[in-house]
Amino acid sequence: MHETIDRRRRQLLAGSAGALAAGMTGATAGLVGWSPRAWSAEPAKPKPLPEYVAWKDAESLIVHSASTIETKRSAFGTSLITPAERLFIRNNLPAPDPSYVADRNSWELTVEGVKNPRKLTLAQLKTLGLETVPMVLQCSGNGRGFFPHKPSGTPWTVGAAGCVFWSGVPVKAVAQALGGVAEGMRFITSTGGEKLPEGLDPKGVVVERSVPLSALEDALLAWEMNGAPIPLAHGGPLRLIVPGYTGVNNVKYVKRLAFTREETDAKIQKTSYRISPIGTKGDPSQPSVWEMNVKSWVNYPYPGMGPLPAGWVQIHGVAFGGTQAVKRVEVSLDGGRSWKEARFVGPDLGRYAWRQFVFQAELKPGAYTVTSRAIDAKGNVQPEERMENDQGYVNNSWRDHAVQVTVA
Amino acid sequence: MHETIDRRRRQLLAGSAGALAAGMTGATAGLVGWSPRAWSAEPAKPKPLPEYVAWKDAESLIVHSASTIETKRSAFGTSLITPAERLFIRNNLPAPDPSYVADRNSWELTVEGVKNPRKLTLAQLKTLGLETVPMVLQCSGNGRGFFPHKPSGTPWTVGAAGCVFWSGVPVKAVAQALGGVAEGMRFITSTGGEKLPEGLDPKGVVVERSVPLSALEDALLAWEMNGAPIPLAHGGPLRLIVPGYTGVNNVKYVKRLAFTREETDAKIQKTSYRISPIGTKGDPSQPSVWEMNVKSWVNYPYPGMGPLPAGWVQIHGVAFGGTQAVKRVEVSLDGGRSWKEARFVGPDLGRYAWRQFVFQAELKPGAYTVTSRAIDAKGNVQPEERMENDQGYVNNSWRDHAVQVTVA
Repeated sequence: MHETIDRRRRQLLAGSAGALAAGMTGATAGLVGWSPRAWSAEPAKPKPLPEYVAWKDAESLIVHSASTIETKRSAFGTSLITPAERLFIRNNLPAPDPSYVADRNSWELTVEGVKNPRKLTLAQLKTLGLETVPMVLQCSGNGRGFFPHKPSGTPWTVGAAGCVFWSGVPVKAVAQALGGVAEGMRFITSTGGEKLPEGLDPKGVVVERSVPLSALEDALLAWEMNGAPIPLAHGGPLRLIVPGYTGVNNVKYVKRLAFTREETDAKIQKTSYRISPIGTKGDPSQPSVWEMNVKSWVNYPYPGMGPLPAGWVQIHGVAFGGTQAVKRVEVSLDGGRSWKEARFVGPDLGRYAWRQFVFQAELKPGAYTVTSRAIDAKGNVQPEERMENDQGYVNNSWRDHAVQVTVA
Repeated sequence: MHETIDRRRRQLLAGSAGALAAGMTGATAGLVGWSPRAWSAEPAKPKPLPEYVAWKDAESLIVHSASTIETKRSAFGTSLITPAERLFIRNNLPAPDPSYVADRNSWELTVEGVKNPRKLTLAQLKTLGLETVPMVLQCSGNGRGFFPHKPSGTPWTVGAAGCVFWSGVPVKAVAQALGGVAEGMRFITSTGGEKLPEGLDPKGVVVERSVPLSALEDALLAWEMNGAPIPLAHGGPLRLIVPGYTGVNNVKYVKRLAFTREETDAKIQKTSYRISPIGTKGDPSQPSVWEMNVKSWVNYPYPGMGPLPAGWVQIHGVAFGGTQAVKRVEVSLDGGRSWKEARFVGPDLGRYAWRQFVFQAELKPGAYTVTSRAIDAKGNVQPEERMENDQGYVNNSWRDHAVQVTVA
């Protein structure tokens, strides 16, 4: 169950559609004169923050649409955590009414697929256990903006990600309190509590995701983010947190948590968030977008910042391993011809958090292609090439994330 | 140099004034019917947030004055970190003009007491090194509200504290870059860049503090807090961070950092922030308020929350060791008659951060006096009694921090 998506990728590429995708990738692999650039990183004209996230820091964010808001690459700091004001937004449905968080403790969750299924209020959940986990929250489509075939969906570059603390009750403790997971269940299936648009097939719009039962080990039902009740825009009052899994699997406003035999047949699971060959639609035979892969990128220098003065520069960025701890990061100043090990900065917050790295370099005037490459605890190396796929998911190509730097 | 304040306290108490103070403490030590209560925890009428911190979360805060704002005990979560919106404010001078942070990178710091003294801009500091440290920031007077003699100053209970990430350059790296610390220097003396009120002796108002040179090991010149540039209200663009030392030693808007032979003779160092016997003025012969001591308190249940329903409750709080890591926390439900070990929640962020603890208890109807007691890595135990002192500094009494809880 705990296969990485990179392993599943290899299985996919073994097929004919995969071979086609690999061929397309090869075409972009020439080193000289190659310039990594997102096809549409920022809207031409900055849009204002929508009302429901008016409390966010507008200067740190790129508003793609009312429900897709990206952190600027220049706005990631070196303090490990991403404050709520700078955290990206990606909602599959419009954010619910503020009444959802008017009386947080009375929020109800239905738990099914356990020996003693029942409804629990948030107040009751708060008596069953407590854990806190710092975790990279990353949209499945982060890095989509680097795909040359321009997939549909938001063209995120790096900013649909952040590292935040979540606090809540382990799903495991809830299952135990209700007599344990029923026999034969293989998935955790969670349903978001958003009001569904009328006149549409609910299965086509509901945010309902299934993750493998193995995720039970570290999953949380969280009510707190970064030391405050989870903001409505981020899924409060209650959000399922599946450490190491992409954003969509962390169901907001969770109203039902079920242990199930099969994956849900909701569209968002059945055909969306699948790794499908370019030009084809998603279907359940293809890998679902679950665990994140090993990834890193440089945040400073950042694209478009203008020439740097010659001399010492501290190149810094973030690195994480998805469900594995990240072990090492290397930095290249010459587009991947040579690599040197970077130093981690600050404490290790555990396998699901990112680490910040710094590489101190003395740069003479000239042009540099700066990028980074992470290696996880199992030896998985962040790849040079993206995994081509129709919807532009899980891009961890170090080449795509390179930054062109001019030193004057 | 790295003596804890508790050790220095014992030296103080060996004197006659100390014996008097110890006598006063004894008078409050009876267990039965004793009710820990701050003498003025909250102003009668909530005051609005001052303009310069209008971005903070008003509902989480108690505004004592424009420059003293406390986090409500109920507003500490379980995610380890304290978000900027909930972090306390204690400024010795009015917050500077917003122009201080208009062009952060051009902020200038004068470094003295090194082989090659010079001015450095923040942009230059950013090339010299990088480190990130999560740290408890706590006002020297946190817990003052529990002193029965009503010291002058803000009657904080627990909320003049938070745990935040700082990121910047190690002071050590700056000293090295300038040829090293000059011979014979024993202190790091830093000067805040606030504009001083006119017509007053500058020595009487300037925020200039000296800490022992041993603090060099982990001190930072920080430009970032919790993943964002340090807000003006918290000392941005540049703040000296001395991990393990009380708030006042972490000089805001730092414009001069000097390695010095002697402590500064500024009033804030010479006679303020001294542990002086009740009724006496501070003087340089008394211990300076430097390192924090081992401390913990319960945040849930919190005072005034009303009766809890009978059944399971998750008692949680924070614990830290000052300059030492915290090793263990115990919780008592009966005002200190018996203790049980609590469990730490979330990752260990290092010796200068706090840990969050939880203790799960099944409570029958009745009255409880709930408190906690931390033990640091060196075996120092959080004491039952506060260290009596005129100004009400460094209160770590577990008895003072107890919460009266009614279970219905």
